[in-house]
Amino acid sequence: MKAVVLLSGGLDSYTAAAAVRRDGYELFALTIRYGQVHAREVDAARRVAAALGVRRHVELDVDLATFGGSSLVGDGDIPVARRLDGSEIPSTYVPARNTVFLSLALAWAEVTGAEAIVIGVNALDYSGYPDCRPEYLEAFERVAALATRAGVEGRRLRILAPLLHLTKAQIVALGLELGLDYGLTHSCYKPAPDGRPCGVCDSCRLRAKGFAEAGVDDPLLAAG
Amino acid sequence: MKAVVLLSGGLDSYTAAAAVRRDGYELFALTIRYGQVHAREVDAARRVAAALGVRRHVELDVDLATFGGSSLVGDGDIPVARRLDGSEIPSTYVPARNTVFLSLALAWAEVTGAEAIVIGVNALDYSGYPDCRPEYLEAFERVAALATRAGVEGRRLRILAPLLHLTKAQIVALGLELGLDYGLTHSCYKPAPDGRPCGVCDSCRLRAKGFAEAGVDDPLLAAG
Repeated sequence: MKAVVLLSGGLDSYTAAAAVRRDGYELFALTIRYGQVHAREVDAARRVAAALGVRRHVELDVDLATFGGSSLVGDGDIPVARRLDGSEIPSTYVPARNTVFLSLALAWAEVTGAEAIVIGVNALDYSGYPDCRPEYLEAFERVAALATRAGVEGRRLRILAPLLHLTKAQIVALGLELGLDYGLTHSCYKPAPDGRPCGVCDSCRLRAKGFAEAGVDDPLLAAG
Repeated sequence: MKAVVLLSGGLDSYTAAAAVRRDGYELFALTIRYGQVHAREVDAARRVAAALGVRRHVELDVDLATFGGSSLVGDGDIPVARRLDGSEIPSTYVPARNTVFLSLALAWAEVTGAEAIVIGVNALDYSGYPDCRPEYLEAFERVAALATRAGVEGRRLRILAPLLHLTKAQIVALGLELGLDYGLTHSCYKPAPDGRPCGVCDSCRLRAKGFAEAGVDDPLLAAG
């Protein structure tokens, strides 16, 4: 069985990929450089891809910054938006990002004949993003079935999100159980010039919370 | 009202955009260069965008050739595939192309606050492509509703495909009724070095059939 996995170089996509590999899938890793990505993140994705022993790792450029619309892609002209619970959607939200990512993974999945696409989204700790919800992933799976030769021919293409219902602590615990080296990953939105995580951005805080609740040290911080 | 229109420089997307403009939409044109596109097609898209008076025209590079898988993107290693009716899917089929295109249009639609995305697909004359079917477009519209802030906030984003149920002759007739200059467009997959259409590829033959059945001359051929 083959799976195309969206690999960012972060902790979540590494863990999701490893979980699917354990289930017997051969991995094809796709890293999308969409205009916000630090070279450091791409380096992390390469390290993680090598550690996972993926069959092939593709890096694809899609300059979503052309459209503007997110603090991650550097455009200040964003309409005020609210979270599902009425609070604000995080400013790091990139419009339609997961849809763009999944569609590109779908293109590659069709070429390779993959049975699955893997995405490391999580509905619990990141509920501010509308495209991390289970019903969103189900809707995309239906698009995949209708869009492709595979679907026409009756072969199902599944969207796998093995972390969807896990807390960050459970994700860290799963990764350690799978023997992953989180020192390879990169999570910080605004790293220092020497690459050390800032420790205060949303991504750093969520990561720290995960390690703390899992009761283990983050090797990225220990490695200093 | 605003609409993001996928504009290729061909006859169909020009006509679809013009039909939606007539209905009162302000147009944002998106041309995606996905690895197969001749400079000639991009030139045509620019001419068409100017003729339509779009508010903004964005050209975005997405190198789908990285994945291989279609004669249009130059990879010969394609598994044999069949059309819906049992015959072969055209070799010009690009894996998941419309899904990739719609997802990028969705990203821009979210940033601009557009109420619609316009795509010039046609289910009658191009039934070999699975991602030109009405049920496919409906499934993508559901993804759009679930993926975005607009959907979360209850604003509907529609996928408009005004040519979906028209024959090529009806499309040509509609365009002439709208006063379009089809001499601006480009349809041929394999133009001669001087830019003249080959006259024998699928796209040329379909275009010729449309003009013939509409009972008018193709200005592109008259202009030579």
